[in-house]
Amino acid sequence: MTYTLILLRHGQSEWNEKNLFTGWYDVELTEKGRAEATRSGQLLTEAKLAPAVLYTSLLKRAIITANLALESADLNWIPVKRSWRLNERHYGALQGLDKAATLAEYGEKQFMDWRRSYDTAPPKLSDDSEFSQANDPRYAALGEDAPRSECLKDVLERMLPYWEDEIKPDLAAGKTVLVTAHGNSLRALVKHLDGISDEDIVGLNIPTGIPLVYELNEDFTPVTTGGQYLDADAAADAINAVANQGR
Amino acid sequence: MTYTLILLRHGQSEWNEKNLFTGWYDVELTEKGRAEATRSGQLLTEAKLAPAVLYTSLLKRAIITANLALESADLNWIPVKRSWRLNERHYGALQGLDKAATLAEYGEKQFMDWRRSYDTAPPKLSDDSEFSQANDPRYAALGEDAPRSECLKDVLERMLPYWEDEIKPDLAAGKTVLVTAHGNSLRALVKHLDGISDEDIVGLNIPTGIPLVYELNEDFTPVTTGGQYLDADAAADAINAVANQGR
Repeated sequence: MTYTLILLRHGQSEWNEKNLFTGWYDVELTEKGRAEATRSGQLLTEAKLAPAVLYTSLLKRAIITANLALESADLNWIPVKRSWRLNERHYGALQGLDKAATLAEYGEKQFMDWRRSYDTAPPKLSDDSEFSQANDPRYAALGEDAPRSECLKDVLERMLPYWEDEIKPDLAAGKTVLVTAHGNSLRALVKHLDGISDEDIVGLNIPTGIPLVYELNEDFTPVTTGGQYLDADAAADAINAVANQGR
Repeated sequence: MTYTLILLRHGQSEWNEKNLFTGWYDVELTEKGRAEATRSGQLLTEAKLAPAVLYTSLLKRAIITANLALESADLNWIPVKRSWRLNERHYGALQGLDKAATLAEYGEKQFMDWRRSYDTAPPKLSDDSEFSQANDPRYAALGEDAPRSECLKDVLERMLPYWEDEIKPDLAAGKTVLVTAHGNSLRALVKHLDGISDEDIVGLNIPTGIPLVYELNEDFTPVTTGGQYLDADAAADAINAVANQGR
């Protein structure tokens, strides 16, 4: 008996394309991103994988990716659960900034610390910023606990309770689970599943729009470390492209 | 203190356009239906109505209508609950049949009894039919209780527990509720809300893709009988068109 967990990073967003730090800012998918989402549903169908329940973040690039994937897999009807705990990492004061300009201004070391170090959060985003979510009704219940900046460690710590309390029980009940989320919330989950060190997680990238399937043992350890992408060649190409963002 | 309930019938489906009895058969929206759905979200925005929770049936024409409406209203993130209890009336052995051909074959009285009488269900649909849902995994939990044909009275009886147990508590908590469903499941709800007689409900039609807003008193009686369509002129035109289906 194994459990099946499918991770799906949203398709290309408008700010992926423009090379801006996005974080919790709620940007649209591009046409390419929509096509990636539709194809990811076809990949699920071809692999005979039928999710029984969907989890998403509260951000439209993940939600619409999931909607389009389920539409092309003809599984629109499965139950949906959403949580801010699956949101992208909050990029703090970097939200809305150009990645290449940030690299040029702050230099390689600071840039890579903010982007990839496990426990260095960027400066907090001001609540007055046009890129702030301080007055967004979807986070109203969080009150002052809503993050103003996060490092990957912060993401892992707010994601894990949701994994433990919501997602794991669905898996334990034998349901195939689809989690449609973001580069960093999925990296945090993969770090936890595969037992990746704080140092090694820095080098791990997850491509957009390609389902990553984990078969899990009853103790929720992966049968195969790192899982398996449904289109392994496309995943390898895309991982290289992600690693070179901002260059 | 009043509660706000928004009812939305799905946009035009492929079988609306072809004039076939649809029921629980899971047909696609047409391009026109998708455009209606997108516009319904714009109508919500213009009316400054922001649903806090969405309810849908398990049929894609309702689910995709809701997805597109929420996308154009920029409310993708609200929680979603789905239930078979909001499904269209199961049309029994009529599912998949042409409405005009059925009228010609069975005559005006039988045709109108099946289409509009409150308590006359069509003959049951065989589980062997290509239009049957007997082996559809989304209804597996219902077992032998899954309907094989329904009259409007049957729809009301399976819809009401969901209204009482799920939707009303959300309204009582002050949440604006959007219910995206079908001609007959919404007629059943309207019959209940407005206290329409078994005879008078026969003449009531609900147009596709136009939000119908009910302000409800604390005892869940409508402030205004019949509610209010967000585009009253388009609703009046469409109601006439629905009444003439099959002619």
